Amino acid sequence: MMRMSQILQKTKWAALSNAEIMKAVEEKQLAFYAIEQALAPDYDRAIEIRRDIVKKNWCPSSKPSHPLDAVPFQNYNWEKVVGQSCENIIGYVPIPVGVAGPLLLDGNRVSIPMATTEGALIASTHRGASAINSSGGCKTSVLKEGMTRAPVVEVSSLEEAAALTKFCEENFAVLKAAFESTTRFGKLNSIKTAVAGRKVYLRFTAFTGDAMGMNMITKGCDKALETLKEHFPSIRVLALSGNYCTDKKPSAINWIEGRGKTVIAEAVIKSDVVLKTLKCSVDDIVSLNVDKNLIGSAMAGSVGGFNAHAANVVAAVYIALGQDPAQVVESATCITTMNKVGEDLLISVTMPSIEVGAVGGGTGLTSQRALLECINCGGANEAEPGANARQVARVVAGAVLCGELSLMAGLAAGHLLSAHMNLNRKPQQ
Amino acid sequence: MMRMSQILQKTKWAALSNAEIMKAVEEKQLAFYAIEQALAPDYDRAIEIRRDIVKKNWCPSSKPSHPLDAVPFQNYNWEKVVGQSCENIIGYVPIPVGVAGPLLLDGNRVSIPMATTEGALIASTHRGASAINSSGGCKTSVLKEGMTRAPVVEVSSLEEAAALTKFCEENFAVLKAAFESTTRFGKLNSIKTAVAGRKVYLRFTAFTGDAMGMNMITKGCDKALETLKEHFPSIRVLALSGNYCTDKKPSAINWIEGRGKTVIAEAVIKSDVVLKTLKCSVDDIVSLNVDKNLIGSAMAGSVGGFNAHAANVVAAVYIALGQDPAQVVESATCITTMNKVGEDLLISVTMPSIEVGAVGGGTGLTSQRALLECINCGGANEAEPGANARQVARVVAGAVLCGELSLMAGLAAGHLLSAHMNLNRKPQQ
Amino acid sequence: MMRMSQILQKTKWAALSNAEIMKAVEEKQLAFYAIEQALAPDYDRAIEIRRDIVKKNWCPSSKPSHPLDAVPFQNYNWEKVVGQSCENIIGYVPIPVGVAGPLLLDGNRVSIPMATTEGALIASTHRGASAINSSGGCKTSVLKEGMTRAPVVEVSSLEEAAALTKFCEENFAVLKAAFESTTRFGKLNSIKTAVAGRKVYLRFTAFTGDAMGMNMITKGCDKALETLKEHFPSIRVLALSGNYCTDKKPSAINWIEGRGKTVIAEAVIKSDVVLKTLKCSVDDIVSLNVDKNLIGSAMAGSVGGFNAHAANVVAAVYIALGQDPAQVVESATCITTMNKVGEDLLISVTMPSIEVGAVGGGTGLTSQRALLECINCGGANEAEPGANARQVARVVAGAVLCGELSLMAGLAAGHLLSAHMNLNRKPQQ
Amino acid sequence: MMRMSQILQKTKWAALSNAEIMKAVEEKQLAFYAIEQALAPDYDRAIEIRRDIVKKNWCPSSKPSHPLDAVPFQNYNWEKVVGQSCENIIGYVPIPVGVAGPLLLDGNRVSIPMATTEGALIASTHRGASAINSSGGCKTSVLKEGMTRAPVVEVSSLEEAAALTKFCEENFAVLKAAFESTTRFGKLNSIKTAVAGRKVYLRFTAFTGDAMGMNMITKGCDKALETLKEHFPSIRVLALSGNYCTDKKPSAINWIEGRGKTVIAEAVIKSDVVLKTLKCSVDDIVSLNVDKNLIGSAMAGSVGGFNAHAANVVAAVYIALGQDPAQVVESATCITTMNKVGEDLLISVTMPSIEVGAVGGGTGLTSQRALLECINCGGANEAEPGANARQVARVVAGAVLCGELSLMAGLAAGHLLSAHMNLNRKPQQ
Repeated sequence: MMRMSQILQKTKWAALSNAEIMKAVEEKQLAFYAIEQALAPDYDRAIEIRRDIVKKNWCPSSKPSHPLDAVPFQNYNWEKVVGQSCENIIGYVPIPVGVAGPLLLDGNRVSIPMATTEGALIASTHRGASAINSSGGCKTSVLKEGMTRAPVVEVSSLEEAAALTKFCEENFAVLKAAFESTTRFGKLNSIKTAVAGRKVYLRFTAFTGDAMGMNMITKGCDKALETLKEHFPSIRVLALSGNYCTDKKPSAINWIEGRGKTVIAEAVIKSDVVLKTLKCSVDDIVSLNVDKNLIGSAMAGSVGGFNAHAANVVAAVYIALGQDPAQVVESATCITTMNKVGEDLLISVTMPSIEVGAVGGGTGLTSQRALLECINCGGANEAEPGANARQVARVVAGAVLCGELSLMAGLAAGHLLSAHMNLNRKPQQ
Repeated sequence: MMRMSQILQKTKWAALSNAEIMKAVEEKQLAFYAIEQALAPDYDRAIEIRRDIVKKNWCPSSKPSHPLDAVPFQNYNWEKVVGQSCENIIGYVPIPVGVAGPLLLDGNRVSIPMATTEGALIASTHRGASAINSSGGCKTSVLKEGMTRAPVVEVSSLEEAAALTKFCEENFAVLKAAFESTTRFGKLNSIKTAVAGRKVYLRFTAFTGDAMGMNMITKGCDKALETLKEHFPSIRVLALSGNYCTDKKPSAINWIEGRGKTVIAEAVIKSDVVLKTLKCSVDDIVSLNVDKNLIGSAMAGSVGGFNAHAANVVAAVYIALGQDPAQVVESATCITTMNKVGEDLLISVTMPSIEVGAVGGGTGLTSQRALLECINCGGANEAEPGANARQVARVVAGAVLCGELSLMAGLAAGHLLSAHMNLNRKPQQ
Repeated sequence: MMRMSQILQKTKWAALSNAEIMKAVEEKQLAFYAIEQALAPDYDRAIEIRRDIVKKNWCPSSKPSHPLDAVPFQNYNWEKVVGQSCENIIGYVPIPVGVAGPLLLDGNRVSIPMATTEGALIASTHRGASAINSSGGCKTSVLKEGMTRAPVVEVSSLEEAAALTKFCEENFAVLKAAFESTTRFGKLNSIKTAVAGRKVYLRFTAFTGDAMGMNMITKGCDKALETLKEHFPSIRVLALSGNYCTDKKPSAINWIEGRGKTVIAEAVIKSDVVLKTLKCSVDDIVSLNVDKNLIGSAMAGSVGGFNAHAANVVAAVYIALGQDPAQVVESATCITTMNKVGEDLLISVTMPSIEVGAVGGGTGLTSQRALLECINCGGANEAEPGANARQVARVVAGAVLCGELSLMAGLAAGHLLSAHMNLNRKPQQ
Repeated sequence: MMRMSQILQKTKWAALSNAEIMKAVEEKQLAFYAIEQALAPDYDRAIEIRRDIVKKNWCPSSKPSHPLDAVPFQNYNWEKVVGQSCENIIGYVPIPVGVAGPLLLDGNRVSIPMATTEGALIASTHRGASAINSSGGCKTSVLKEGMTRAPVVEVSSLEEAAALTKFCEENFAVLKAAFESTTRFGKLNSIKTAVAGRKVYLRFTAFTGDAMGMNMITKGCDKALETLKEHFPSIRVLALSGNYCTDKKPSAINWIEGRGKTVIAEAVIKSDVVLKTLKCSVDDIVSLNVDKNLIGSAMAGSVGGFNAHAANVVAAVYIALGQDPAQVVESATCITTMNKVGEDLLISVTMPSIEVGAVGGGTGLTSQRALLECINCGGANEAEPGANARQVARVVAGAVLCGELSLMAGLAAGHLLSAHMNLNRKPQQ
């Protein structure tokens, strides 16, 4: 990390020509990743130079114009990105954003911003919202809340593994105090242990306020482990994450224990709305839900994938709202249930692992922050820390409810293919 | 669908003022989703009007400026989006793109474009690429290829279920011919059946050229089912997708059978590179891989999540290259293995379900297409249909290899927290 | 249920001839299942009559002797079986029992009785025990203990689902008191809830003394649900088991949360013992454990099956000791780890769901009880309730450790096939 | 192995007194396991001596009689056991056998022998059979058939892994010929490969006639691997089983691909039978099946456990019929579906991995063989090899259908607890 020297040299670098800087990078006098730092705050220039390097050296083009020229980079607030959210910057990709709704969710109208390139997705979600609104809206409940991180430590004997396990249970307060000394908002809720051989996995679960909370909890764990080592000097921390968390990977533990927010959302759709707006019968959609979302997924050996296309909606809302799209992996786990109540359709989604924040990560970027503000969740909730992040989770669950209702109805009505084909009008191969 | 009438009225709408059009939408004379069609080709104006409606009616703000003002929408090529990739458009979110590499992959240098807001991710992947390059690069192999779609049909008896199953096996050629009549490039490879009660799930697997292929295969299935119904008039198609596909949901079937491309990538890292560049020992990283990626994930009940953070890399590359981020769910399933060979480190990733295309979907948008061109995969490969999509998959696997190597090394060396914290410099809650 | 009338008529039935009783059963004057009750305590006669009915009417044989004649039924203590463990009795099957060990387990020598018809299994376990004993024996630890049962109840709204969930947490003491009013030994440890739509699954976990505990916990749950209904009159109990328990079915919840006893067992095998007794090298067996038990099972999409053949040992010990062989499904989930420590081999097994008892079920039958007594676990431990059941679990884990060590060594040494073939000497097809 | 010398000395050993032989074993002149061989054919004497050794040295008792005295060993046909099915024999445990049915299965009446100590299980299955019979019986279909074994081999490069995979596909006939050269009945159906790093897992699937087939396929694989090594001299067979088989461990691969026989069974139960015999309504039981067997198991993270208690029935039938009880783990995977058709109940079970044989293993023991004969499946089917094993599988599926129907009805009717409690009349703790 040549950071200090570079900061001192900032004026020097700014004085050079682009060609000279390129040469410096090529000759490794300036690190490839450090161009922004060298030229700060003129990030546009830094990025332009990197683009030139990439165009010249990494993927030269024989055509008069280089493909990279079509990737925009100007007129963007790089200040919020450099050193925080992205490295080796060469520009940005614009992801189209549409809006579904407004959905009547817990008595309020909320817009659902979705960033996607999948034709028909927003239209479908929008249709689901209409059907829900026509029947009085949907309700949500946040059943559980807690971000997790699970370091793995090595012990020196089976007895020590057992003792460590016991300590975490009986002296939880000690570890909680250590954890919470690192954070203003974080509250450690529990530690769940698993032992395999002489490796102990400690899954910390913590309330993390309005942040998604991965960084917060990682710091807290680090501190708690320090304290643990005072009581068990012979243990060795192998890694701050031992995959028992589990972050960004399919796992039953998140499905069963939850990660982030565990949210349920439901709506009762009047039978005539099902018939007229959704073009299918209540019996047909209820029955298809069993055959596809329950039995079909069961036959496929799914854990947590008992839904039609929750991931589509989650990914689109996540990208629009600056959430982490890699966490779609577990955030989109969902079971969709449908029942006939009287003549109407009761639809619900249970989503145990919605990992979202109103601050931190991509939520700080200008557009994403703006879209969060459109749902009144921009930044920390001062009055009730955590309330904004919970609301983001409710909106996600509500949006998924719309998406499930609409796609399932489309399938039950048999017009999926045509709808999709119409909306993806480009000639197919 | 008021499409026809609106097309006829296009000139009329264009002649009205923005306020008049807003009023028409509010009074439902013009559908909310149809503003672009009404004003085509002036999409900027259409989007601006929708933004005004949203600002006024959906999420009014008491502040002088509305948050939505911070979401850009101008100077963008909406022509390629409208009616294809997004509905109810209100603008776009810019996702910062950085570049890792160039990685020496199968003997060629490839840039790895990554769109992300997760600090340190690109830097880490870049570091992995450096270590791999220092040791001679990495190799990949595409072991299998085939997009899948699994309709669910209802039969009228157990005997018919058995007969249908048998027919698909013995008369595969008949169904293949039907399927392939709908597509220029698609080739039906196999049909795998599962029976539960009187529901039969038919998982079609097809080569889909340079397209990711979901639309192509859906059309082909539709046709094959028609043919099937000629032989089994009493069957009823319940849905074109019965979740046995499985699309965008965790499932063992994709892990075991593959979906899209099944790719392996490997590199041998010289022991001194491990020590000097990656700052850890070969023994430590090999051992951590067992404790975290194998045992930790096993304890967590994971199916397909035997890696450190494949989803991070997959999501970033997917967004940059116009792939479907909802498919990260299964595309990022990955098992990372590490072994000591001699004194060096052998690292490999096996990724059975990389779902990518070089044409179709988001690949047609200007920036995404440009970034595909930077890796020489922009559009269909005329000479060898499918080769471009395969190359995208190879790049994804290679990038994941870099990411796994670097993060695991960071964890083994114990400096993860500090690196992460440095790069996410914003004050945490 | 014609029970009362039959008891009154007992003398009458005894006075009839076998032929007359057969006729009565054929004419449905006496229920097929009620013959024992009618003739008690002459169970041999009752069983003989049922055999005659089966031979004559159910599966008549053209041969002079009927196959059923080869199934023994005399000289057996039916008193302990009738009305408790088996109905419609026609005899018994003898399962050969062998013994492995004695294994040095937690400092004591224990015999491992195994009932099996799989050749080589006991010999292999015995060999494992020898190797372990030569190196100082093995150690075990019971990390967690609790039988589970999960009723499913229906609520009338999403709000009620949330309220019910909260109630179980905040008023746990109330439910605990209700539960424990039904049992002398049972102690309710926790209630874990899951919500899907308007169905709430309540997983009760309880200490059940020396009993495996399924009946005990079922009664306790029934009572706790009564109390719950007082607070939530509108809920409806759909079933006492909603599969969230999970009994006798593969499930991640048992793997992650445990069911019955969660036990770890480990041993350090001296390198020369590995070489001389087990005929392989420490490096080879450690490496094979990764390739087979971790990666192989991961590729197969296993949850909880990270072992070589735990089920073989568990089934054999369970049948010998009167445990429930259907519970082998989850009791045999196990992760086997191996590491080189110094020059020696550290082997461990983690088994989260060993469901065993020293009283109740099949443990009351004469031979099974006798074999339990051979390991000092016959019946309840008066001094320390639960200690005998825990010891059974330790023996199971210790036996599995022996089995894993021996089979893995055999595979690493390459002589599996020949050993197996020698021991199954019968000509194969 | 002191086998040869001992055989020569047989006369010598027989001439010694029991006390002398015990001394010889204690002084290791005669191996503990070799007593039967030394005294053959007087196995009773050999077992008695071993019992004396165990009683004296392994688990001495302070009481006048030793618990082992209650374990029978005489009057048993040890000839069929020694050297084949059990080692270190000390006796046998009798497992009570009852009979359910006769069930009308595919038009024929079959008895269902069940060996169990779980009270109410047989009565419940019997009740299910009655309900099915009243409605015209049940039907079954064997959809697929094939035992599997998956060796793991090491290759020396990624290219070789790919080449090996390709070879197995393109030169399947070569490997098939090698495999089939070792067996009279076995037919190799397919080889499915998986690659992780430089380890390749080869899952062989073969028809194995009337044998369950594990030994047959293991021998065939061994031969096929020899042939494979001729073409790929540098590969190294790490183990004949790499857990990708998967034998006796939970795995998605068996659930999805099947192992042994894939069987479906179904019955339509008349609505009045449901009401009168099963005491519940069709609507209630259909709805409970969704809430418990589908959603409950989904919430629990089950792969293949979508049933009420298939394992109970499978274990009981397996033990009665000499099948391998450790294979209950995967044999009992089952999805139970219920639908209302007209006013009646359609119930079905899908069981993809029923691993059974009519010859080999425990089927050769006298009583087990006799019970197989009672269902006309004793030994190989000369006319149609494999038909007997298939029939065993059909009976298993039919029995499970009875068990599912009855238990689910009991739960729906709410009388489970009482039934269970009545039948397990022993006072509970």
